[in-house]
Amino acid sequence: MNPHPTTTIGLLNPGAMGAAVGASAVAAGAQVLWVSEDRSDATYERAKAAGLQDVAWLNALVNQSRIILSICPPHAAMDVAESVRMLGYERIFVDCNAVSPETARKVGEMVGQVGADFVDGGIIGGPPSADRPGATRLYLSGEEAPRVARYLSGGPLDVIVLDAPVGAASALKMAYAGWTKGTSALLAAIEALAIREGVMDALEQEWSKSQPRLMAQSEGLGGAAAKAWRWVGEMEEIAATFESNGLPGGFHEAAAEVYRRMEQFKDDPNAPGGPELAKHLLRD
Amino acid sequence: MNPHPTTTIGLLNPGAMGAAVGASAVAAGAQVLWVSEDRSDATYERAKAAGLQDVAWLNALVNQSRIILSICPPHAAMDVAESVRMLGYERIFVDCNAVSPETARKVGEMVGQVGADFVDGGIIGGPPSADRPGATRLYLSGEEAPRVARYLSGGPLDVIVLDAPVGAASALKMAYAGWTKGTSALLAAIEALAIREGVMDALEQEWSKSQPRLMAQSEGLGGAAAKAWRWVGEMEEIAATFESNGLPGGFHEAAAEVYRRMEQFKDDPNAPGGPELAKHLLRD
Repeated sequence: MNPHPTTTIGLLNPGAMGAAVGASAVAAGAQVLWVSEDRSDATYERAKAAGLQDVAWLNALVNQSRIILSICPPHAAMDVAESVRMLGYERIFVDCNAVSPETARKVGEMVGQVGADFVDGGIIGGPPSADRPGATRLYLSGEEAPRVARYLSGGPLDVIVLDAPVGAASALKMAYAGWTKGTSALLAAIEALAIREGVMDALEQEWSKSQPRLMAQSEGLGGAAAKAWRWVGEMEEIAATFESNGLPGGFHEAAAEVYRRMEQFKDDPNAPGGPELAKHLLRD
Repeated sequence: MNPHPTTTIGLLNPGAMGAAVGASAVAAGAQVLWVSEDRSDATYERAKAAGLQDVAWLNALVNQSRIILSICPPHAAMDVAESVRMLGYERIFVDCNAVSPETARKVGEMVGQVGADFVDGGIIGGPPSADRPGATRLYLSGEEAPRVARYLSGGPLDVIVLDAPVGAASALKMAYAGWTKGTSALLAAIEALAIREGVMDALEQEWSKSQPRLMAQSEGLGGAAAKAWRWVGEMEEIAATFESNGLPGGFHEAAAEVYRRMEQFKDDPNAPGGPELAKHLLRD
């Protein structure tokens, strides 16, 4: 058996992450389709550079794809699945988004209504790149996960199958991001608190003695600010995952609020980090 | 001027932290009093080892002390201050506890009613020890802070005066512990989530690749579990500090709930860390 059989994959949609995952699938030998209708010039250029083929209309993508990958901001995951369900898609649908296991199962039920097989996915790491092969992992769970992994493996994206049902890949993503993005939000909020209470300089001096990495970590939060608009929904999904497991959702409800206050920095490559960012969390 | 003048200090109460701060004051040349009434044999031994003098009754401590240090679990801070106010104490009262700036100001108003001067304090680090001089810092703020610092300096406890009003030392403590204890609670909660969702092994493998320090940090949480009974109140004080500054209190309300679920490990030197601890956070 060919370990990396080729197939046709539909990608919804080529944002920074989606385009890079698509390029990895192309490197693995797949034909990757996307839909340019209603998408920006920037997306068009990104998709072209990634080697994706524009089929212009969603109907064409649904008809031609053997696997559809949904890669979008978490708050859009249900809409993407619904758009595909309405067109009667009946092959494999993979939700790769940062959503709760419960949301993943709902997406699975939705596309299952028209006969599609559902695979749960969760991406850990930044957009995969040939410069750093294996630095980004796509976790998959559900019955058809091994088949999807065979088609996607071979590019810079590391594809890992969890021997577990739908929900597991999303749960892993929630747990992982619950730490990384939860602590980033907490760090920014603590600096905002210190600024408002007039003790930021003292805190910085204390940290320099006992938490020497924190100021550097805090200065790096500009990147978080640029992505905060997408992370609000992700934090809400994590909070829901905590609550549905009988654990307190407050950490990530608070983190969602912190990222909501950073939305003004959407996609801003010059968003500040450190106390300069934290100031923007304060309200009168 | 003698840089380390001697005085008589009343200590309420010699727990692990209090006794060590008292010993540091003794090393700095102070006479340190405590009150054995209603205290355990363990406390008696600890106070004796620290070189503190038992005056048996609170009335004697109040009459003889020029400075009183309140060092107790945060939820007891108001009661300790009230007990001293009722006896008409009118010299310097220092609240060293992990309380919000607002609670610190309330304590200050309370002891101020009978004429005492109030100094706000916040301790960062574990119980000070001659083996690790300077590893623990007592921050002080308020008008009389420099005077208190002169009497307390000279032992292993590093005493730092903030040129800031009452509330600043407490705010600094809240900001500092908001990170250290907030992230510890989050880490335990995330492991509980991963266990309940059946992805703890996968999370551990992912962390070993991309967050190599986290499992060791998690294994060290047994110490947090033993102190969790005191940290519930501290987390509530931090949440209140966030809220009163217009920032979301949810991080630390959730952390309080996490520590509440660890209270069974009170002062248990063998409390587990890592996933073994996290299991105890789960409720049916």
